[in-house]
Amino acid sequence: MINPHRYCVIMCGGIGSRFWPYSRTNLPKQFIDFLGTGRTLLQMSYDRVTAFIRPENIIVVTNELYAALVKEQLPELTDAQILCEPARRNTAPCIAWAAYHIKAIDPEASIIVTPSDHLITRESIFVESIIRGFEFVETNDALLTLGITPTRPETGYGYIQIGAQAGEGINEVKTFTEKPDIELARVFLSSGEFFWNSGIFLWHLSSIIKAIREYMPDVARAFETSTAMGTADEDRFIKETFPAFSAISIDFAVMEKAPNVFVECVSFGWNDLGTWSALYDNSPRNRDANVAQNCNLISYNSTGNILAVRNPDKLVVIDGLHDYIIADAGDVLLICPKAEEQRIKQMVNDTKLAHGDKYL
Amino acid sequence: MINPHRYCVIMCGGIGSRFWPYSRTNLPKQFIDFLGTGRTLLQMSYDRVTAFIRPENIIVVTNELYAALVKEQLPELTDAQILCEPARRNTAPCIAWAAYHIKAIDPEASIIVTPSDHLITRESIFVESIIRGFEFVETNDALLTLGITPTRPETGYGYIQIGAQAGEGINEVKTFTEKPDIELARVFLSSGEFFWNSGIFLWHLSSIIKAIREYMPDVARAFETSTAMGTADEDRFIKETFPAFSAISIDFAVMEKAPNVFVECVSFGWNDLGTWSALYDNSPRNRDANVAQNCNLISYNSTGNILAVRNPDKLVVIDGLHDYIIADAGDVLLICPKAEEQRIKQMVNDTKLAHGDKYL
Repeated sequence: MINPHRYCVIMCGGIGSRFWPYSRTNLPKQFIDFLGTGRTLLQMSYDRVTAFIRPENIIVVTNELYAALVKEQLPELTDAQILCEPARRNTAPCIAWAAYHIKAIDPEASIIVTPSDHLITRESIFVESIIRGFEFVETNDALLTLGITPTRPETGYGYIQIGAQAGEGINEVKTFTEKPDIELARVFLSSGEFFWNSGIFLWHLSSIIKAIREYMPDVARAFETSTAMGTADEDRFIKETFPAFSAISIDFAVMEKAPNVFVECVSFGWNDLGTWSALYDNSPRNRDANVAQNCNLISYNSTGNILAVRNPDKLVVIDGLHDYIIADAGDVLLICPKAEEQRIKQMVNDTKLAHGDKYL
Repeated sequence: MINPHRYCVIMCGGIGSRFWPYSRTNLPKQFIDFLGTGRTLLQMSYDRVTAFIRPENIIVVTNELYAALVKEQLPELTDAQILCEPARRNTAPCIAWAAYHIKAIDPEASIIVTPSDHLITRESIFVESIIRGFEFVETNDALLTLGITPTRPETGYGYIQIGAQAGEGINEVKTFTEKPDIELARVFLSSGEFFWNSGIFLWHLSSIIKAIREYMPDVARAFETSTAMGTADEDRFIKETFPAFSAISIDFAVMEKAPNVFVECVSFGWNDLGTWSALYDNSPRNRDANVAQNCNLISYNSTGNILAVRNPDKLVVIDGLHDYIIADAGDVLLICPKAEEQRIKQMVNDTKLAHGDKYL
């Protein structure tokens, strides 16, 4: 039987600009069937938690721009399960709202907070890990973050250094670190003490509320002095209040400050799909090491490319291309070396300068 | 005043497969605004001859598949001015039909025969040259071909070696040659005796009819034993007879055999636009030497590319590409080095093998 006090908050408001033009302002990454499996990343995130969360206990927090997309992709959700942010304020205000929202429903709740756009390939290990994490936070006043056992000296992720053991597969956190350079990443990898910061969190409602009161007192005060939460007035209250909150991540606002932060060290085939190269690395390749999901590809003398074509019926013929991103969104075509993908941000800016919002 | 006995035959039945996928079976090269001028190559071919040919004396010979396209692009034409071939039989049967068709209208006609998909940049020199050519063929029993003064050692064209002078800018033909290798092309260029074979012809009706009788006796017999030409029965006659003609070019069938072949040496900015590289060489380039007509291009570290995008509203962003063809026809995207464009024929074949006619 699924524990009825367990809740899931899926954060689904991002715009996925690093995958432009495949990911667009009006159809970000989490709403796309990125891996060609027939389910979007959001749908996969939802499916994954239904093993241990009651469907009615799943809350999706998104930007109001994407409410229709969420409803379309997850018709199982009632309107009350979709929280629409009126402004982008990073993860801390999002998580705070979700916490106070759930508090009005079930003060005994424990919660998993998860992004909607990550890849997890070993679902049964994921489920075991999360259940173990829930058991820890339900018996300890703990803010638990999931640390992924690193498999390569990745420079694109933040790392968590573990301290003393606190439970089965659970340790105290010694430090959070920023993205390292390649030398430091190699040291981290070989040390065995550093884990990738996944952005997946577990806590009991009482623990996160306590932390919000301590580290985000303005936000806590706004929610606690209102009588709107859990009533028909909640939406109006959020529209008025939420945009005034500071945009800050939960890592900066809470996790790096609180004394009761723990890390569960896990290994379930995780990738944040944060870059085209990450997507390439996590996708099945054809015999020429090209990744061409959902795409009719005919290739000559071409290797190591990743193709993402919005129209599954489009034929792509390539010759003499090695290690390129080819992304065709219908009205925008991007061709860019994988090694230059950090330039996509500049491309988006240049496109905005030249054409306004038309192609964003 | 325009000489009312002068006629123009525009040959417009080709499929332009070397420009696949931009040129398609259902929309070949001549029907496309290839240079982004607002007029298709066919329309430009038509416009160009109206300086010296009465509009009602312009005949377009096309494949029946393209009759609607011709009417749409040249609404000035009456149905009687559009000859629809029921089968592709190369240029000789096409020219023979046009000759007998015109014979039924005006036995005193002189005719210019021209492809519909070439580029001519210096129109006033073209007009002067053609008028001079008409005057020659109207006073001599001559099959006149236009030889373009070569400007580079081109290996993609056939050449004509000139003999003794026969008129102002007009010479006897010593030899027709096949496409030379680069060494030979250099010799041709420096000799001053070799000119590019343009595929543009001028002759009096009586001269071409005489040649058809001599070198294509079966074809002549078919037309001359019929009473259908110039009547309502012509179409039915062609449908029955034309497919039985051998597919052969006018060069092989007549020009390389007849004794009365002459060449007018001209220089009017001609290019047959036979390849992507030729199109690139004849198109205005942006500051990075990319050719991107009719296309919103944002480029980084990219030079020497030619972009052809059917949707003029599409944004193309490229990075790290040098000397590529990028052709987006909506349902087919081709990315191929310019130096590999001879492989496009194989690509078309491979596409047909994999997908049938869908993407041709």
